[in-house]
Amino acid sequence: MPDKTVIVNLSNRHIHLSKEDVEILFGKGKGLTKTKDLMQPGQFACAETVTVKGPKSSFEGVRVLGPERPETQCEILASDVFKLGVAGCPVSESGQLDGSFPMELVGPAGSVKKNRGLIVAKRHVHMDPASAAAFGVANAEVVDLYVPGERACLFENVVVRVSPKFVLECHLDFDEGNACGHKPGVKGEVRKRGK
Amino acid sequence: MPDKTVIVNLSNRHIHLSKEDVEILFGKGKGLTKTKDLMQPGQFACAETVTVKGPKSSFEGVRVLGPERPETQCEILASDVFKLGVAGCPVSESGQLDGSFPMELVGPAGSVKKNRGLIVAKRHVHMDPASAAAFGVANAEVVDLYVPGERACLFENVVVRVSPKFVLECHLDFDEGNACGHKPGVKGEVRKRGK
Repeated sequence: MPDKTVIVNLSNRHIHLSKEDVEILFGKGKGLTKTKDLMQPGQFACAETVTVKGPKSSFEGVRVLGPERPETQCEILASDVFKLGVAGCPVSESGQLDGSFPMELVGPAGSVKKNRGLIVAKRHVHMDPASAAAFGVANAEVVDLYVPGERACLFENVVVRVSPKFVLECHLDFDEGNACGHKPGVKGEVRKRGK
Repeated sequence: MPDKTVIVNLSNRHIHLSKEDVEILFGKGKGLTKTKDLMQPGQFACAETVTVKGPKSSFEGVRVLGPERPETQCEILASDVFKLGVAGCPVSESGQLDGSFPMELVGPAGSVKKNRGLIVAKRHVHMDPASAAAFGVANAEVVDLYVPGERACLFENVVVRVSPKFVLECHLDFDEGNACGHKPGVKGEVRKRGK
C-alpha cells in the first residue's frame, strides 16, 4: 500500500499583491523584501505588512507573501469574517476571485480600494505530478484529508492542485489547524472520496 | 434507520466560577446576573465578565456562565493557547481539572490566582438518557461527529455525556465551528467509532 501522507502546514491570514499595488502601498520602485522562503518553490514571506480594512474593523500587520501576482488577493480565516464585517465572503481557491469581496488596503506609502480580492482560503493540497500519479488523483480533484491526533479530523472538500512548480504539501488555515490539534510536522492522509 | 442527528452549537471562551470566587471578583453578596438561558437546562449566560491573565497576555471580557460551580474552571480555545502563553494546556472535559493550568482572574472587586482550572474545552455531545438509548451510546463513550456543508468535517474523539439534566446538543468551540463552516441551526450526525 503506497504512502498517501502529506505534510500539513498552516496558513494565517495573508495577502498577495500585484506589482501596481506594491508601488501604491510601499512606494515606487520599492519592491518586496524576502525574509523567509516558504515550502512551495519560489514563494516567500516578506518583511512588508499591510492593514486590511473591512466595513466593521481592520486587521493590522497582515503579512505580504511574494512574489508579486497578476492580481491582488487577501486570504482571511473564517474566524475573521465576523470581525471584519464581511458576512458572505466566499471560501475560494487561490486565484479564483469571481464573487470575492471588496477591501481597502493601507500601507506606509498609500492606500488602495479594491473592488474584489478578499476570500476565505479553501483548504488544498499542492502536488507535483509524480506525487499526484502516486496518489491516484488529478488536478482539481476534491479529496478528504485525515489528520490524526487527540483532535483527529477528517476534512472533506480538500482541493488537489497539481503543477510541476509545486511540492507535496497540504495547506490548512489556523482555524482548521486548531480544530484538529495541529502540531508542526504532522502528516495527513489523503483519501479519495468515498474510499 | 433512526435519526442520529444533533444540533451543533458553538462555545466561545468562557468561565464557570465557584461561589467563593464570585464574591472575590464581584463583591460579597453580589451573585451572578442571568442575561440569557442556554440550551442545557439551568445553565445561563451572565452579565458579568472577567479578565483572564496568562503568562504572556490577557483576555478581557471573558463571559461568566452560571450557575456557580464547585470549582472555578475557564474553558479557552486552542487558538487562545499561544496568545495566553500556556503551551501544553490540556484538552479536557468540563470538570476534569487534573493537569489543568494555573491562571489569574481579575474582576471589578478583586482578583484571584488559581493554581488550576484552565483547560481547552473538549468537544462533546450532551444527551438525555432516552436520546443515548436511541443513539445506542453510553455515557463517556467516544464517538465521531459529522458536520455537513461546504467545509464538511468528521470530528473524531467527541465525548458523549449522558444525564437526565441534559438535552440533546453538541458543543464545538469557535475554532472547530470555523473549520467546519458552522452555520446556526446546523445538525451533525453522531457515528459510532469504526462504523
